[in-house]
Amino acid sequence: MENEITWAIVDGDAIRQIDGTPFGVYTLTGRVIPLPRAKLLAPVEPSKVIAVGLNYLDHARELKMAVPKEPILFMKPATAAVGPGDAILYPEMSKRVDYEAELVIVIKEQAKYVPQNEAGRYIVGYTCGNDVTARDLQNRDGQWTRCKGFDTFCPLGPWIETELDPSDVKVEAVLNGEVRQSSSTTNLIFDTNFLVSFVSRVMTLLPGDVIMTGTPFGVGPMEPGDEIEVRVEGIGSLINKVVKV
Amino acid sequence: MENEITWAIVDGDAIRQIDGTPFGVYTLTGRVIPLPRAKLLAPVEPSKVIAVGLNYLDHARELKMAVPKEPILFMKPATAAVGPGDAILYPEMSKRVDYEAELVIVIKEQAKYVPQNEAGRYIVGYTCGNDVTARDLQNRDGQWTRCKGFDTFCPLGPWIETELDPSDVKVEAVLNGEVRQSSSTTNLIFDTNFLVSFVSRVMTLLPGDVIMTGTPFGVGPMEPGDEIEVRVEGIGSLINKVVKV
Repeated sequence: MENEITWAIVDGDAIRQIDGTPFGVYTLTGRVIPLPRAKLLAPVEPSKVIAVGLNYLDHARELKMAVPKEPILFMKPATAAVGPGDAILYPEMSKRVDYEAELVIVIKEQAKYVPQNEAGRYIVGYTCGNDVTARDLQNRDGQWTRCKGFDTFCPLGPWIETELDPSDVKVEAVLNGEVRQSSSTTNLIFDTNFLVSFVSRVMTLLPGDVIMTGTPFGVGPMEPGDEIEVRVEGIGSLINKVVKV
Repeated sequence: MENEITWAIVDGDAIRQIDGTPFGVYTLTGRVIPLPRAKLLAPVEPSKVIAVGLNYLDHARELKMAVPKEPILFMKPATAAVGPGDAILYPEMSKRVDYEAELVIVIKEQAKYVPQNEAGRYIVGYTCGNDVTARDLQNRDGQWTRCKGFDTFCPLGPWIETELDPSDVKVEAVLNGEVRQSSSTTNLIFDTNFLVSFVSRVMTLLPGDVIMTGTPFGVGPMEPGDEIEVRVEGIGSLINKVVKV
């Protein structure tokens, strides 16, 4: 399986290869390899990355911004997605690049005008995400596309947890071993089912699309050489290193 | 060729089928059908739609917004793209939906850190675009993703003009036969080569990605039943009808 890219199920310390994808029918092929021998890629190649601004009360206060009455949507380009262990490239254009730890929804099937109480069936699972943001450019541009759209600014992983109940899990950012963000999804202003329903009333969601659900209090800068970890309770750890371009 | 989807070259009143795509090598298959018998689709399926705010001096003044020193980037989801003749669906969430006529750059090959004077070789051609915008939601959200991201809010077409010199062409919006926007790309604050270079310094552009170059003075509302035409000199006419969801 050298250099082979494959879908697989993480099962303890092993990964079990599957035929098919988590978005449809799949079967185990019987091939198993030890987890440490696998290089995990971003667990999904989204056709679009939708994200939500100011979705934790504490973060809205931290930025001195009004609490929104409806979700504030923005997008990150799919070209920003990277996986666990991949470098976050610190761009020349910025002098202030922040981590933002987030719980990420992964869409299972095409979704349009989904009622809130049926949203669950359109979600295949959840992963961790880092909504990396060039804070200086965010303030300068007003629009958040450039500041959040650089290549490598969307680490996702380490895998999709299909059994998570996202209603009360800890979301944390750990910078060089120090906890910098620590909150719970109980502080979300708009919960995961609401978000899937809301976004699907605007645009058609496709299998593998992701919704980043917002970041809590405690965002802050990273420097080249730093190691940033996003931990979501019940999912795992997404670790990336910051590297100067 | 009933219901067959194919790439083709528009040649007068006929379309000539090709093997391959405009992003790589292609050959004529020899099949020719009359243009009126073809249903033209959006001439490209972009992996991402990058757009530029306030790129005409006259439009920035119209919105009473400061003239930007750098391009203000935003994105429209690929799911918003439709082709010539397709309906623009007026969403329930909005009470004010505007046309915005634009010249659109279509990317030929993967582009990253492209110098301005080499941008031309990364452009396969140009098409017309309508950056349909729910103006009430634009004002409410601050971020422009929802207001510009509804399904059908990105008409593109009618085809890709590969021979255009975009430096001095008229860009017009015609609502129910009345000219509402009429400007020239000579009024662009940031020209097409600059934009390709600038965007490619942020994110990797892929074949078929598009950059919408901004809209001139004269934006205004559309109502269900209206016919909106975007005309770019040297390319052609993109016509769509507004339909209540």
